[in-house]
Amino acid sequence: MLLSRELIFGKVGGPFLADDKRRELKVQSTSVQQCTAGFAQIFDQWRANATFKVLKGWRNEQYPVYAANKQLLFNVERSVSPLLGIVTYGVHMTAFVRTKGSDPTGMLFWIPRRSKNKQTFPSMLDNTVAGGISSGETPLETLVREAVEEASLPEELVRKRVRAAGTVTYVHVRDRRAGGETGLDQPECQYVYDLELDPEEHVIPRPNDDEVESFSLWSLAEVKKALARGEFKPNCAFVLIDFFVRHGILTAETEPDYHEIVTRLHRKLDYPMA
Amino acid sequence: MLLSRELIFGKVGGPFLADDKRRELKVQSTSVQQCTAGFAQIFDQWRANATFKVLKGWRNEQYPVYAANKQLLFNVERSVSPLLGIVTYGVHMTAFVRTKGSDPTGMLFWIPRRSKNKQTFPSMLDNTVAGGISSGETPLETLVREAVEEASLPEELVRKRVRAAGTVTYVHVRDRRAGGETGLDQPECQYVYDLELDPEEHVIPRPNDDEVESFSLWSLAEVKKALARGEFKPNCAFVLIDFFVRHGILTAETEPDYHEIVTRLHRKLDYPMA
Repeated sequence: MLLSRELIFGKVGGPFLADDKRRELKVQSTSVQQCTAGFAQIFDQWRANATFKVLKGWRNEQYPVYAANKQLLFNVERSVSPLLGIVTYGVHMTAFVRTKGSDPTGMLFWIPRRSKNKQTFPSMLDNTVAGGISSGETPLETLVREAVEEASLPEELVRKRVRAAGTVTYVHVRDRRAGGETGLDQPECQYVYDLELDPEEHVIPRPNDDEVESFSLWSLAEVKKALARGEFKPNCAFVLIDFFVRHGILTAETEPDYHEIVTRLHRKLDYPMA
Repeated sequence: MLLSRELIFGKVGGPFLADDKRRELKVQSTSVQQCTAGFAQIFDQWRANATFKVLKGWRNEQYPVYAANKQLLFNVERSVSPLLGIVTYGVHMTAFVRTKGSDPTGMLFWIPRRSKNKQTFPSMLDNTVAGGISSGETPLETLVREAVEEASLPEELVRKRVRAAGTVTYVHVRDRRAGGETGLDQPECQYVYDLELDPEEHVIPRPNDDEVESFSLWSLAEVKKALARGEFKPNCAFVLIDFFVRHGILTAETEPDYHEIVTRLHRKLDYPMA
């Protein structure tokens, strides 16, 4: 397989980086493994030379890179992905409790605050569980793993009760808050999940790694106010808005831009995808 | 307000109708009312002269026509709308019962069969309640009205229990099954609703007008089979697929085109909208 200069070159850095930051990428290979290894050598050099600031966030996690025909081209270190302008995939789950039967105004939400040491969006509010999908992992397996790792939720309970509820898509344009180079396109597709918890069971998410500072149970009114104040990490706000749409909290009668919001939450990403 | 020849001319009939069927539309007016009345004269003539077959389905219902800036231009008889290529709006509700707690595999669905005398898609399967939103009506008021008219559901119960759950968008290209001219673009935006019924309450939808032949309570497996056989009116199938996505019945693990289906169900309509 030959990845032509044109396929990749236009993406690395794009128009937002100074000329001396642009790089040509070309690897000649017949297999995903060889291609992955060939590019990895280049990326390792970039890291060693501190060519790009975003590589300070090196994760040792592999993300897939697809061609337009859904073919897997190669895998790439997660922190390199913004430089390639590829779609990355993640999972976001909202855990909630009902206190007024089916009436959504009685919902309570488990809201985590991100650790103040997080590289991106420190101390901002987040969805109950969220994480990136690595190469070869399915959305559900990622979700179960992250629910245990980040929120100490029992695996069996998550597998039994969690409900997939679609996807949310957007293009995050990296700014200063995200660290590293600004202006890079990061198209993302998040698989969204709901987890309804029974108040009688007293299942409480608790921090388990250094990602989350604390979890609190917030009323719908409190969540809305925090959204309005911009306290949520932006893509987590999208996921909550999608939750509000799906559960009849945000309606056409209360929001003039209702159908436009619904459409934009599911926008077509004009990039090769899985 | 001047509606330029260019604005409307390209839409009436479009490239699919023979030249002698094309019409120029031009009305000079400063108000929505005058514009509506001016066009209505032309449409009434078309109806009298049987210029277009779709006008055989004259409904005496007014639909809104918007400019790109969301401004209301004029209202138009419903059956004329396919000739103008404008977005029309409707409501679709899925009434269901849970028999296995939160496990969606235990869901039962109230499925109506359309009357064999319906002008469009006779005898096909439908969503529990569906209808077009007339000029000046809100989605929720349309839904409540149609739930009473079409399915004999108690108004109070519908108002209390129904949950808005987003929109579904698509472009219906009129074919022979829909009657009238073929190949006309009909972009549509459907506001979708869920109504969960309590099996203990024995609320049963019943036909109330000549739209529906009968309602039956179908298992999820039966609904899936009927979908696979193409027995549902196509836009009702979209609404059920969206329901399956929102309730975790259709998942990324079981459907390779999952995120593409989710995106397409909420496609951006490249037409002026409300």
